[in-house]
Amino acid sequence: MRVLVVFNHPYEGSFCNALLQSTLSGLHAAGHETDLIPLDNDGFDPVMRAKDLKAFVTAQSNRTGATELLDPQLRDYMARIEQADHILFIFPIWWELMPALMKGFIDKLIFPGFVYDYTPSNKGMTLRMERLKGVTMITTMNTPGLIYRLLFGNAIKKALLLGTFWKIGIKKRRWISFNSVKFVKPEQREEWLAQVETEMHQLA
Amino acid sequence: MRVLVVFNHPYEGSFCNALLQSTLSGLHAAGHETDLIPLDNDGFDPVMRAKDLKAFVTAQSNRTGATELLDPQLRDYMARIEQADHILFIFPIWWELMPALMKGFIDKLIFPGFVYDYTPSNKGMTLRMERLKGVTMITTMNTPGLIYRLLFGNAIKKALLLGTFWKIGIKKRRWISFNSVKFVKPEQREEWLAQVETEMHQLA
Repeated sequence: MRVLVVFNHPYEGSFCNALLQSTLSGLHAAGHETDLIPLDNDGFDPVMRAKDLKAFVTAQSNRTGATELLDPQLRDYMARIEQADHILFIFPIWWELMPALMKGFIDKLIFPGFVYDYTPSNKGMTLRMERLKGVTMITTMNTPGLIYRLLFGNAIKKALLLGTFWKIGIKKRRWISFNSVKFVKPEQREEWLAQVETEMHQLA
Repeated sequence: MRVLVVFNHPYEGSFCNALLQSTLSGLHAAGHETDLIPLDNDGFDPVMRAKDLKAFVTAQSNRTGATELLDPQLRDYMARIEQADHILFIFPIWWELMPALMKGFIDKLIFPGFVYDYTPSNKGMTLRMERLKGVTMITTMNTPGLIYRLLFGNAIKKALLLGTFWKIGIKKRRWISFNSVKFVKPEQREEWLAQVETEMHQLA
């Protein structure tokens, strides 16, 4: 498989960055091809400006030609999404959700007439990407998993996996969550890194 | 009361913009002072860069001096948050959540040692802003309310009102949600604008 890894964390010494390295090792060991989009290092602009919104709305109604309104970087990302069999997101959970940079990737790249199409009623969506079969989301947080589920309703899973990626028609959706990260022992984090590397062999 | 309105929508003709005008009229009619932060027009940068994260982490551990690492715009926003009795957020729900611009406002402005402090155990938070008593979130979406609640678990409410603002200790938290916006008749939208204007009299 060709796996597109979309990464977001501003600090090189972060546990997210360690997870990225283990994930890439695991993917290569499992024989997958990888492509990496490091949103921070790429200087990605997550802001949906008037022209981006106009392109989005234009694409909704006429489905062609809208992408020429977009920045070259977005068009480059689009070409790379088109080549992906699987997209793997790695990011920290800040204030219950993804950072702004990752949200902007969703806002600007999950684009009508490109990633998905609207059904004739205009209320449903169908997947347009032929190769894309699954998404995996690997996250870190300092909240205990039980608290995040009971109090905050697993908001990131509800929004991204049961919302966005389900809506556009991606069948295989998986969340690998590392919890209470700053409160666990270093040995636990080492174990998680080994675990995530191994799990890349099971990526479907 | 002094009400800080934080607004995010890139298109001037949007229903969010109409809601902003009605909200401001209602607040003025009710005798409140207002301050407006228009994130799009301000060219706010929502990206949490390495230096911002460093300031955040520094503030966590020593609680003073960290804000001097921040951009002048962030320090200006901080001074205005400090003067607010109430913060009112207006934004569209895109892909189940707030746009990147609004998420970045949360990431960069809900800052330790400024808006809140950590409890000695480092696991809880207490509100540091003396004037701030409540937050209201006014949102628009094209999803029906029932679907958003049942399938997507009211993700924005779980994350922002039952998560973030509850965690930092704000007692009055309210969500005014306008649903299926693009599918309703213009008369319905007019009614909503009148409704939101009236509701500003009840802002507590």
